[in-house]
Amino acid sequence: MALIVQKYGGSSVADAERIKRVAERIVTARKAGHEVVVVVSAMGDTTDELLDLASQVSPVPPGRELDMLLTSGERISMALLAIAIHNLGYEARSYTGSQAGVITTSVHGKARIIDVTPGRLRNALDEGAIAIVAGFQGVAQDTKDITTLGRGGSDTTAVALAAALHADVCEIYTDVDGVFTADPRIVPNARHIKNVTYEEMLELAACGAKVLMLRCVEYARRFSLPIHVRSSYTNKEGTIVTGAMEDLPLEQALITGVAHDRSEAKITIVGVPDEPGIAAQIFGTVANAEVNIDMIVQNVSTEGTGATDISFTLPKDDGPNAMAALNKIREDIKFKTLLYDDHIGKVSLIGAGMRSHPGVAAKFFAALGAAGLNIEMISTSEIRVSVICRDTDLDAAVRAVHDAFDLGGDEEAVVYAGTGR
Amino acid sequence: MALIVQKYGGSSVADAERIKRVAERIVTARKAGHEVVVVVSAMGDTTDELLDLASQVSPVPPGRELDMLLTSGERISMALLAIAIHNLGYEARSYTGSQAGVITTSVHGKARIIDVTPGRLRNALDEGAIAIVAGFQGVAQDTKDITTLGRGGSDTTAVALAAALHADVCEIYTDVDGVFTADPRIVPNARHIKNVTYEEMLELAACGAKVLMLRCVEYARRFSLPIHVRSSYTNKEGTIVTGAMEDLPLEQALITGVAHDRSEAKITIVGVPDEPGIAAQIFGTVANAEVNIDMIVQNVSTEGTGATDISFTLPKDDGPNAMAALNKIREDIKFKTLLYDDHIGKVSLIGAGMRSHPGVAAKFFAALGAAGLNIEMISTSEIRVSVICRDTDLDAAVRAVHDAFDLGGDEEAVVYAGTGR
Repeated sequence: MALIVQKYGGSSVADAERIKRVAERIVTARKAGHEVVVVVSAMGDTTDELLDLASQVSPVPPGRELDMLLTSGERISMALLAIAIHNLGYEARSYTGSQAGVITTSVHGKARIIDVTPGRLRNALDEGAIAIVAGFQGVAQDTKDITTLGRGGSDTTAVALAAALHADVCEIYTDVDGVFTADPRIVPNARHIKNVTYEEMLELAACGAKVLMLRCVEYARRFSLPIHVRSSYTNKEGTIVTGAMEDLPLEQALITGVAHDRSEAKITIVGVPDEPGIAAQIFGTVANAEVNIDMIVQNVSTEGTGATDISFTLPKDDGPNAMAALNKIREDIKFKTLLYDDHIGKVSLIGAGMRSHPGVAAKFFAALGAAGLNIEMISTSEIRVSVICRDTDLDAAVRAVHDAFDLGGDEEAVVYAGTGR
Repeated sequence: MALIVQKYGGSSVADAERIKRVAERIVTARKAGHEVVVVVSAMGDTTDELLDLASQVSPVPPGRELDMLLTSGERISMALLAIAIHNLGYEARSYTGSQAGVITTSVHGKARIIDVTPGRLRNALDEGAIAIVAGFQGVAQDTKDITTLGRGGSDTTAVALAAALHADVCEIYTDVDGVFTADPRIVPNARHIKNVTYEEMLELAACGAKVLMLRCVEYARRFSLPIHVRSSYTNKEGTIVTGAMEDLPLEQALITGVAHDRSEAKITIVGVPDEPGIAAQIFGTVANAEVNIDMIVQNVSTEGTGATDISFTLPKDDGPNAMAALNKIREDIKFKTLLYDDHIGKVSLIGAGMRSHPGVAAKFFAALGAAGLNIEMISTSEIRVSVICRDTDLDAAVRAVHDAFDLGGDEEAVVYAGTGR
């Protein structure tokens, strides 16, 4: 008998029929003798509909109230799921994030989990019940207000509960069969990956692979909790994210896969005085605006001008904030202009094996060059190479790199529609 | 400066436009220097939509989960209302029943308020904020599960919070201008009533006047809390429900009004052995099935048979429960048959003045007789006369009685569509 935490995204519970199917899957696990905790997102488009309602009453809804509003979405899906399970003859009890003991910071819309006190869930399991928990939400430690965890919040809820309950595995149900060597919508013969390390998964997530969010993988790594990413539409084994690289088979592939990201924009600060402390001032300003930056490139100072250009990439959503913050320090820093470009794409090659294999980056750049694709920025880590290109070149770049490293399989990957939150 | 509790029903917050209008009304009270606590129901048809979703996943949803599901309705409306108030430049904070300190029994779907601990609301008011509270819901004292209060729950929430916060008045906003001498949809010249006592209002509510629910009036009477029932569509003064009769002007009208009720059914138990203890056994059984009965009539024993017939009225919703419970004791009691009739109507005449004026009942029966309407059952209290008739005769009966006691005014009453919960 194991303790399993399952997480279902919004598309898996989009309507009554799908909720009933998910209920059957949950009951199957319970029948097999396992203790089951289920984390669920809001049904289908509920969150967007609620956001639309909010925008109808105010252009700038306050965070506390927006969180109160949005958390009703999971309340609906979790109650319906519990009702559907009852209808199959099994006891299920739904819990809000607050009831489940998900304690967070008080930053509305972007709260972080501080602690998990799953006493009520443990009791429910001890009494033979299946516990259903609202994903994406918690209660602020200091204000006792309801908070939401922001993007990837439901996955993080699942992993955090699994860690706190010492679960054997956290199953993340999604609309694909797990992690692939590239997005099957772009590369039809992308290969399914059975095992991947936390480290590789972190790089994949950071580089745009949407199947798991970065913070949830970080959380799982911290607690050495295995994640099983799998499809809620089939019974196929998905991808197991686990352990340190040292635990993995020696025949570990050189390259894990190719990730891509269309969600970033690039800001270029033109004519920055080339003086000590300026970069710190710029990125301090950006950080204070709560903007996460990704790549940074600084050109060498143009001979004689004493000025340089600094470019960095960031999530498109944060673009307006960052531009506003930078414009405020223009006088102070004395830069010339700000350029905003949201027509970029990022393609990344990830593989733990590349640590010990020089030449990977060169082969990667050569593949792009041979395909006639221009590279605008480059960034690397020990186990990753990323480049920025035009967004219109992105699909071609992914295919070129995937082919160059011979990552394809023999079968066509199956693609389902929609994703959860 | 007063402390005002305002309650808005589902039709008052049915869409974004109405929510904005309600927000303006709330802000007007706040601007006038008052402390304002607002209790709100779910938007328009939300509750019915949620019930429909539940029925799609199970024919018999468990109470705990149904309560969890339904309480999401108020969560949405209260957050949107708080957002709309923020947009007018005022601070508003929304609270679930649980957060607002509404402590209840654990009977799901029909919980009763045990205690109110409005510490967080008091703090919000002290900090200058408007507090928005979800009506209709609370948290069970023993299980800590979320409960709903059943019909009239939002009104009761408002009165309970007003009592706990020592509010000056509880304003119940609805779709009519208050209490009328009869339903204006049936009697076009029904007169608006400015003041009514708790006692009269209790009788009116018990007899089908939908403007206020019985339990909310009971609660207000216990704490001597004035209720102001008024329309959310106009600024007209509504009806004030207040004080003991002794406090009211001496010229208090003989008759307050005519109420009617279409929600009851009649059960007749035919051939009950005329023995001591049988009635107690029958109504004990009905009470154990959690059915509230209204009128009871027992005919005299038919000569020689040693058997009698007992009829009683009850809410139609409870009909199946009561019939099932009675059928179970048939062998035991040895009655002959059970008859169920849900085509009845009840018309009632209410007035504190009738206590000291004999002849009211006779005039009432005469009015019905003159209109050719048959009386099936009669029940009276000190300040009320009620009869059961065919449901098809009900409108005519209301008009006949209203005319006979000359209750009409000169103007046509205004009627709006829809009611809240």
